[in-house]
Amino acid sequence: MDLLLDFIRQFISQLQSPTLSFLIGGALIAALGSKLTIPGPIYQFVVFVLLMKIGMKAGVEIREANLAEMLLPAAFSVMTGLLIVLVGNGIFARLPGINAADGTATAGLFGAVSASTLAAAIVMLEEQGIGFEAWVPALYPFMDIPALILAIVLASIKREKSKGGERKKIEAWGIVKESLRSAALSAMILGLFLGLVSRPEKVLESFYEPLFRGLLSILMLVLGMEAWSRIRELKNVAHWFAVYALVGPIMHGLIAFGLGYLAHIWVGFSPGGVVLLAVIAASNSDISGPPTIRAGIPWANPSAYIGASTSVGTPVAIAVCIPLFISLAQVVFKV
Amino acid sequence: MDLLLDFIRQFISQLQSPTLSFLIGGALIAALGSKLTIPGPIYQFVVFVLLMKIGMKAGVEIREANLAEMLLPAAFSVMTGLLIVLVGNGIFARLPGINAADGTATAGLFGAVSASTLAAAIVMLEEQGIGFEAWVPALYPFMDIPALILAIVLASIKREKSKGGERKKIEAWGIVKESLRSAALSAMILGLFLGLVSRPEKVLESFYEPLFRGLLSILMLVLGMEAWSRIRELKNVAHWFAVYALVGPIMHGLIAFGLGYLAHIWVGFSPGGVVLLAVIAASNSDISGPPTIRAGIPWANPSAYIGASTSVGTPVAIAVCIPLFISLAQVVFKV
Amino acid sequence: MDLLLDFIRQFISQLQSPTLSFLIGGALIAALGSKLTIPGPIYQFVVFVLLMKIGMKAGVEIREANLAEMLLPAAFSVMTGLLIVLVGNGIFARLPGINAADGTATAGLFGAVSASTLAAAIVMLEEQGIGFEAWVPALYPFMDIPALILAIVLASIKREKSKGGERKKIEAWGIVKESLRSAALSAMILGLFLGLVSRPEKVLESFYEPLFRGLLSILMLVLGMEAWSRIRELKNVAHWFAVYALVGPIMHGLIAFGLGYLAHIWVGFSPGGVVLLAVIAASNSDISGPPTIRAGIPWANPSAYIGASTSVGTPVAIAVCIPLFISLAQVVFKV
Repeated sequence: MDLLLDFIRQFISQLQSPTLSFLIGGALIAALGSKLTIPGPIYQFVVFVLLMKIGMKAGVEIREANLAEMLLPAAFSVMTGLLIVLVGNGIFARLPGINAADGTATAGLFGAVSASTLAAAIVMLEEQGIGFEAWVPALYPFMDIPALILAIVLASIKREKSKGGERKKIEAWGIVKESLRSAALSAMILGLFLGLVSRPEKVLESFYEPLFRGLLSILMLVLGMEAWSRIRELKNVAHWFAVYALVGPIMHGLIAFGLGYLAHIWVGFSPGGVVLLAVIAASNSDISGPPTIRAGIPWANPSAYIGASTSVGTPVAIAVCIPLFISLAQVVFKV
Repeated sequence: MDLLLDFIRQFISQLQSPTLSFLIGGALIAALGSKLTIPGPIYQFVVFVLLMKIGMKAGVEIREANLAEMLLPAAFSVMTGLLIVLVGNGIFARLPGINAADGTATAGLFGAVSASTLAAAIVMLEEQGIGFEAWVPALYPFMDIPALILAIVLASIKREKSKGGERKKIEAWGIVKESLRSAALSAMILGLFLGLVSRPEKVLESFYEPLFRGLLSILMLVLGMEAWSRIRELKNVAHWFAVYALVGPIMHGLIAFGLGYLAHIWVGFSPGGVVLLAVIAASNSDISGPPTIRAGIPWANPSAYIGASTSVGTPVAIAVCIPLFISLAQVVFKV
Repeated sequence: MDLLLDFIRQFISQLQSPTLSFLIGGALIAALGSKLTIPGPIYQFVVFVLLMKIGMKAGVEIREANLAEMLLPAAFSVMTGLLIVLVGNGIFARLPGINAADGTATAGLFGAVSASTLAAAIVMLEEQGIGFEAWVPALYPFMDIPALILAIVLASIKREKSKGGERKKIEAWGIVKESLRSAALSAMILGLFLGLVSRPEKVLESFYEPLFRGLLSILMLVLGMEAWSRIRELKNVAHWFAVYALVGPIMHGLIAFGLGYLAHIWVGFSPGGVVLLAVIAASNSDISGPPTIRAGIPWANPSAYIGASTSVGTPVAIAVCIPLFISLAQVVFKV
């Protein structure tokens, strides 16, 4: 009981974080009809700088890290990504009035990963003084890519079956390349590469790190405005998408939190690392995922999966799941 | 006599401020035909960051401020805004060869407020080490909105009269909403809100405050270039607009300086606050005002009011009025 | 022999500089087909901030510098610019299968100067702790403008001769104005002017200087991506352009290094100054030069000169020549 009270207290204090308040502020001014917008090029630049910083930091760390340490968390990331898609796909198949492809596409997007949610979690962990291995953000593609591939494969198989026709080969490698070439993943991988092979410490300290928190605040604002403006799309599809987007992130995060807890016991994975793993699982892809899904499952309705992820999934992942898993870690690991 | 000499000396030293030199530099390179431009998205972003910083700073301060202190300056702000429009409207009505609506629209724009002039005044006060209550910039909408509403109401009444037809109801609330939803005002109000309800100190210190001075230098450059490029428009309208734009800001600032002086005596309003109030009154709306006026008084000629405000009013407010009122405060309040 | 080994060791360590790794990283991700792009407005803004910083810094320094010191290096800059164009023009005239105008235009672009290469050299000198007179970057226009004018004059004369018609007057002053009004040169000159007449130290320290290294890293990325994407154009023109772009920068830099060495002996020009002079000579104009050349020699093929300069010349100038001349200086001047 004490544990529960403690948890509730922690959770409420997390909600006052400035990172969240920017997200809520963005949704608010959009709801009030403000003409304020963040220009597209600024948004692209903000995402680029955040991902480069995360990548470089991870690269610098991996240079000196024990790679064996990463193995188990990486394996768990792949598992979580696949599990989310399988479970989501199964759930949507059992719900009434759902187009099968829409369900699979949505599950794919929720298995994939959001860079902005990840960045918000990093700042909120720092605010709480909870440490983590700097290579943890590099787990991103290990969850992202398998989830997207599995969703596209599942949707394609289902389609072939329903057509009864001959099976077309699905190019898994094509999907991997598509993912790695997306602006988000290639910025992060470029950062990783630079962190590994060059000595970017000075430019990290003088530019990428000081700007991180501020640029994140702007990104949160954009996500809030975007969430509000997409909510109309969600009204045109089955309500189950909204329900899934509300409950899914918490469920997915709990699965990863459990696996992370095992890694904590078995290989000493840090409490902050467990939180990040859970948040990565709770997040859904808002930048690079939608075009990959659209290209891979063109017969699914984007209003369903983009509406669910942008309007409900992302706000829930940031505003509910990050405080939730930080508080859970504070209670479980006593950090 | 000593006082006057002192004042002149102060005034000249203010003119060497880097903030002003960027404004003059911008006008110079535009005059010399340079192809240098600051891209639109960068300009929008610069204004956004400046206003968010001003808003958040004010919000953080108001959290701990005595709200009663703000009452008199806020009332004086409303009064000044209304007075500027009434006087301006009366003057233009007496001048020969002026279209009545053009005069009222111009008076409205000069009663409204410029965020960039306000930002420049904040930096120049800091350069001089003159303090002010951090909530003073939040007086902005108290002067801005009443001025815009009054101008639109006056122009509409005059039009109805001249037509002799039945009176159409003017939607004051519609103009308020339009103003509050403009990019400039909603950025500032969002900042205020975040400063009030969240704890944005860290992101303020790490991002919004360090960038303030540099982004302002870029904004000054843009205003300088813009002033030059609009000067042609001014040539096509009656010269009285240029005369008003030259003299008005000083006159308006002096009215507010007088009212601010009363607030200084009655409720201890700070000398820096008096300067800011005077500068807010001297400024004219360059971002959010023109579209509101254009929507509210579509039968007025934009070349008249935009030419007068962008080409003459804003440079006079920044390059003449800010140094003028700082020097005046240094002499009057001995700061 | 020891000297050579020493030089090779220095050269290899320079190649690990973060500045170069961003250039190489940009080319790599473009080669791998990444969709990552840096939006145009961000690129323009980055170049603007870098040039303003270089200009202001130089202006602040010139305020206190002995102008007589600048005379010899400035004269050598003019000489180098003219020499590069004359030699390049002569070489292309002797090569088979080259359109005369294409050769002259290419030589003009390689005589002109690149602001991004200059910025990279400044950061890499700082990384090595090698000092230079802060006015050295102001030598830029002294080499840039004469080279562009000479190339346009040479191409025009050749054309008149081949036509046998009456000679048209070439407007040298028009080309000077065109150059000075380009975005790059006018940003730098504006910075110089502000550094000379105002006191921009605070805004330099709080904004332009801290952002310099980070924004340069982004510019290097863009140049790397651009180099890769232009390489196809180079395949469509004679291979001699690629050979010239490969060898020319080193040759041009060596000429300037020799002249700089004389200035070192005669008037005490600093070792870092000699390196910068050599790098300015090795660089070729990537921002302001191409439109000037296109306007001045419209009958030359842009694929030849832009392909040669963007795809080969700039990467060679940054990734080979900067480390080369720094190592050379370390050996020659024992810094």
